[in-house]
Amino acid sequence: MSLLENIRSPRDLKSLDGEELTELAEEIRHFLVHAVARTGGHLGPNLGVVELTIALHRSFDSPADRILWDTGHQSYVHKLLTGRQDFSKLRGKGGLSGYPSREESEHDVIENSHASTVLGWADGLAKANQVLGRWNRHVVAVIGDGALTGGMAWEALNNIAAAKDRPLIIVVNDNERSYAPTIGGLANHLATLRTTDGYERVLSWGKDAVQGLPLVGKPLYESLHGAKKGFKDAFAPQGMFEDLGLKYLGPIDGHDIAAVESALRRAKRFHGPVLVHCRTEKGRGYQPALEDEADRFHTVGVMNPLTCEPLSPSGGTSWTSVFGDEMVKIGAERPDVVAITAAMLHPVGLTKFADAYPDRVWDVGIAEQHAATSAAGLATGGLHPVFAVYATFLNRAFDQVLMDVALHKCGVTFVLDRAGVTGTDGASHNGMWDMSVLQVVPGLRIAAPRDAGQLRLQLREAVEVADAPTVVRFPKENVGEDIPAVGRAGGMDVLARPDGEEDADVLLVAVGPMARVALDAAGLLQARGTGCTVVDPRWVKPVDEALPVLAQRHRMVAVIEDNSRTGGVGWAVAQALRDAGTDLPVRTFGIPEQFLAHAKRSEVLADLGLTPAEIAGRISAALVRKEPGPARKEAALVGKEAALTSKGNGST
Amino acid sequence: MSLLENIRSPRDLKSLDGEELTELAEEIRHFLVHAVARTGGHLGPNLGVVELTIALHRSFDSPADRILWDTGHQSYVHKLLTGRQDFSKLRGKGGLSGYPSREESEHDVIENSHASTVLGWADGLAKANQVLGRWNRHVVAVIGDGALTGGMAWEALNNIAAAKDRPLIIVVNDNERSYAPTIGGLANHLATLRTTDGYERVLSWGKDAVQGLPLVGKPLYESLHGAKKGFKDAFAPQGMFEDLGLKYLGPIDGHDIAAVESALRRAKRFHGPVLVHCRTEKGRGYQPALEDEADRFHTVGVMNPLTCEPLSPSGGTSWTSVFGDEMVKIGAERPDVVAITAAMLHPVGLTKFADAYPDRVWDVGIAEQHAATSAAGLATGGLHPVFAVYATFLNRAFDQVLMDVALHKCGVTFVLDRAGVTGTDGASHNGMWDMSVLQVVPGLRIAAPRDAGQLRLQLREAVEVADAPTVVRFPKENVGEDIPAVGRAGGMDVLARPDGEEDADVLLVAVGPMARVALDAAGLLQARGTGCTVVDPRWVKPVDEALPVLAQRHRMVAVIEDNSRTGGVGWAVAQALRDAGTDLPVRTFGIPEQFLAHAKRSEVLADLGLTPAEIAGRISAALVRKEPGPARKEAALVGKEAALTSKGNGST
Repeated sequence: MSLLENIRSPRDLKSLDGEELTELAEEIRHFLVHAVARTGGHLGPNLGVVELTIALHRSFDSPADRILWDTGHQSYVHKLLTGRQDFSKLRGKGGLSGYPSREESEHDVIENSHASTVLGWADGLAKANQVLGRWNRHVVAVIGDGALTGGMAWEALNNIAAAKDRPLIIVVNDNERSYAPTIGGLANHLATLRTTDGYERVLSWGKDAVQGLPLVGKPLYESLHGAKKGFKDAFAPQGMFEDLGLKYLGPIDGHDIAAVESALRRAKRFHGPVLVHCRTEKGRGYQPALEDEADRFHTVGVMNPLTCEPLSPSGGTSWTSVFGDEMVKIGAERPDVVAITAAMLHPVGLTKFADAYPDRVWDVGIAEQHAATSAAGLATGGLHPVFAVYATFLNRAFDQVLMDVALHKCGVTFVLDRAGVTGTDGASHNGMWDMSVLQVVPGLRIAAPRDAGQLRLQLREAVEVADAPTVVRFPKENVGEDIPAVGRAGGMDVLARPDGEEDADVLLVAVGPMARVALDAAGLLQARGTGCTVVDPRWVKPVDEALPVLAQRHRMVAVIEDNSRTGGVGWAVAQALRDAGTDLPVRTFGIPEQFLAHAKRSEVLADLGLTPAEIAGRISAALVRKEPGPARKEAALVGKEAALTSKGNGST
Repeated sequence: MSLLENIRSPRDLKSLDGEELTELAEEIRHFLVHAVARTGGHLGPNLGVVELTIALHRSFDSPADRILWDTGHQSYVHKLLTGRQDFSKLRGKGGLSGYPSREESEHDVIENSHASTVLGWADGLAKANQVLGRWNRHVVAVIGDGALTGGMAWEALNNIAAAKDRPLIIVVNDNERSYAPTIGGLANHLATLRTTDGYERVLSWGKDAVQGLPLVGKPLYESLHGAKKGFKDAFAPQGMFEDLGLKYLGPIDGHDIAAVESALRRAKRFHGPVLVHCRTEKGRGYQPALEDEADRFHTVGVMNPLTCEPLSPSGGTSWTSVFGDEMVKIGAERPDVVAITAAMLHPVGLTKFADAYPDRVWDVGIAEQHAATSAAGLATGGLHPVFAVYATFLNRAFDQVLMDVALHKCGVTFVLDRAGVTGTDGASHNGMWDMSVLQVVPGLRIAAPRDAGQLRLQLREAVEVADAPTVVRFPKENVGEDIPAVGRAGGMDVLARPDGEEDADVLLVAVGPMARVALDAAGLLQARGTGCTVVDPRWVKPVDEALPVLAQRHRMVAVIEDNSRTGGVGWAVAQALRDAGTDLPVRTFGIPEQFLAHAKRSEVLADLGLTPAEIAGRISAALVRKEPGPARKEAALVGKEAALTSKGNGST
């Protein structure tokens, strides 16, 4: 590993010769496979950009020049070349982030792991260079073909292409995949470009072809007319990019360092917007990745790098698979139920549904906005679409959920996987805002199932709703044992009450899988003599009308949710109590208003105090503070005085 | 007006001959100018689509065929042809909506006035036709060239183009404008297409051109190479649309009914995705609109249709102009301050800034996502961008504000015009969600200035913030007189307190221009003997630390905001009180969780009870309910007992 170890900064790359560069690339691949196998992480994407990253850092002068990575999960090679070679705690607490991180390095800019953003960033940075007269500085944006299907990439291209005098280099890392193979008209167009064999050679082919044509009058015209598309591409493989006004260079073999460097040199000299089209192979150099059709080596868990066997078997059932299996059953009963994915058919659990009903599922690309709005169209057309998506990515479609789906009262089910704290992927993958921002959407209903049984049931309840959007959200971790209800209050499940009594000190409102935490917290409180009722509202929006009634039999309400505390279920419950004239003290336990650093989900939750012990402790403390003292003044500012009577069970 | 009056449904159009159609078009234009002059509304866009709309309704069979309008402000002609000719209360309470409305007609589908959605809807509806085997039904989407700059239009195009066997007709209504002239690479490309003079004639030109070339060996090759772009366009004017896989027909003169019908007939026969490119003229047939460079006839107020003089002079200063003037001053002092608009330079008040600093302002198209993300790039590049946008449209960029701007701690100022209830534009133009959804964004600060003086001051405070996003929001109406502060508490302005006392019954927290309502409500309450403090928090997020302290000197807190009550400032204030251990009763006055029908802003606010009398009445009622009765039980569940002592002033 001697070459790699000697690369302390990108400058160290510049003295290497061709043979050394090939050797370095090999060392990096070896490092990646073994390092990522030890910790888990993104493998395929990084194996695909080894040479591309080397060429970029040899061609530009980072950080003065800005090398920007879209999505960011392909930045491992970049990390290795910019002084970060300790991958031992990759994505773990205190270890390297799985994405660029400005805290780690001045060579990093964009930490955001949501796709398709890089061209917007690049446009802004290039404009700043222009305004501030930094003419010798370059901005280079690396974007995958999959991310080009995202709308914001188009918005940026439209702006970048129009500014002929503003230098900006777009490197399209074309591996024909997002997670799944890239879809759509653009993918077909890129395929056309790909089939040409280098710009210069194409031109020479075009020349020969034309020379061979019967070049007289009508026959020529008809030949050209008939062969129009091929003819055009022969002479102008740049196609739609040049139509927009972008200089196009390519296609380039992205694994040929010299070829990429040559293209980048030409791009630098152009002093305007240039697109360099590089073909790469995801998983390059690692046979298991290349052979896997389902692209399971995009992200891997801890594994044996040779056998690819997982070393920490998950040993459980994922929420995703419970959803996926139930969808197949629903699909058999309901021919009007259809499914949508935004480039993540497998990760969101729709593979089996797609196998069973191939004509009733659509991969729309990395295009959450289109997923939501086309769902409104599908619903208006008489179907019931289920859009399964990671919770954090639905933020892209907030306006469409509000304005297209909800305003038009469309029966669309949004299934939010990876809701709540996800952990190792860091700040931008946590699905911790859905229950807040969706809270404002009129008519929308949110289900937070606590276990597999509830997920199956609530998914079925959701697809029954024909005149409003519904949301079903669940976390990343494996689903635990089913948690039985001991009673019912309105549409809510009562999970525990003290000795069957109706009244108690504290009403714990447990959102989704936080039911387990709430029950454990209640156990601790009961042991201290504080009577607790634990209720699972099941549908957390709207707040069940029975909740304020139930609350009045308690002295305090505590809401526990795996979501931003700001704007979440806790706030909604408090409002429902106020509206019912019940000014009981409320305490909300959720994620504070901050971005969360990467660590395991359990570590993050513990750090946030979302553990039974911490919650029980804080509730006890609040009760003590609220307990009437001997010299207390009149204070009837609470709804139902009856409910406030100090209980005989001696809560401290 | 005899012809138009006899059109009761689209079917009535089909029997008219060419001459009658021309006459009908003239009648419609006359009707539009005079009707819209009486009520105000969208004029230019509707004058541009008279013939296009007639041709569409003659070529298709609505509502079985779906004719879909993007943005929807150009649907007046469609309304006239589908049985809606009473424009007397257009956009007014109980009158016709200014957009399609499913309540009004079975011919309407999309009510959403946010641009670029129609292709997503159309894709969904076409997919539903396919799944349900409705092969004889057509889906036709009408979209402006401006709306094609929006990312979700691209996402949809990418999907539509890929499905070769799914019929869908896209009509591009190309008038070279959104509000302002359309910008970007796409606009340049459309201009290229426009300059060709009909598909067939182009082909024949191409034939002649090729026949005239010296068709031998190297010279031919060099001619073709040099003329590559022109040559390609000569043979393939469809350009990038065909590159994506869409059949292209055009350009068509959108004011030639027969030509449009002919193109639509061809499109129907194609049984796949087709784009029909129609050139139209915004404001067609109305000289004042055609002559106005600033496109002020896009929307007009009540006016004299001949002189174009406003008949209900606004007689005041708009919030927009206060912002625009201050931006020019800030721009002079701060060369790093730059501005962004999403296709609305004039409506958001940036015209003067653009005149003064043309190199420091960018129109990014109808592309709010790009506006936000490129702003993050600009900030990272050393500038301070100010993105001025209607509040409702920022919803499009929620993910970008969260993930690109806030996560990266970028100093970007978002100026939200038309925040709160806007009124006549109906449900989708109200800016009533910003203070809720932005509430969750870590680090983001929100200013709600109460008057012009505060707007100037807080805008300056906002652009001083270098490490976090800020939001400054104000409504549509004219700004009133400045409201002086009588004191200060933390960073908040105290606007009124009873006889200078520190304690009172009720703390009224007044958000932005609701200060006037709060002061009037306080006046009514004071007259009834209820002591009120009125405070303007100025920055409503984060909640000022002084607020819970101030609140403890009161028996109740009431928050008044021109925003969705759900998730808004009221909820945040309640949380701040809870976090401070102050469980005072809180009442929140804002917009309930519903979509609002069109009416004047004042009418909407009155209907929602956001008036001084209604608010004072509800506060009085709540106080009565909270007032300790003679037989009251212990109830010390409130923070500071001292603050709860019943005041001697006898609030009833």
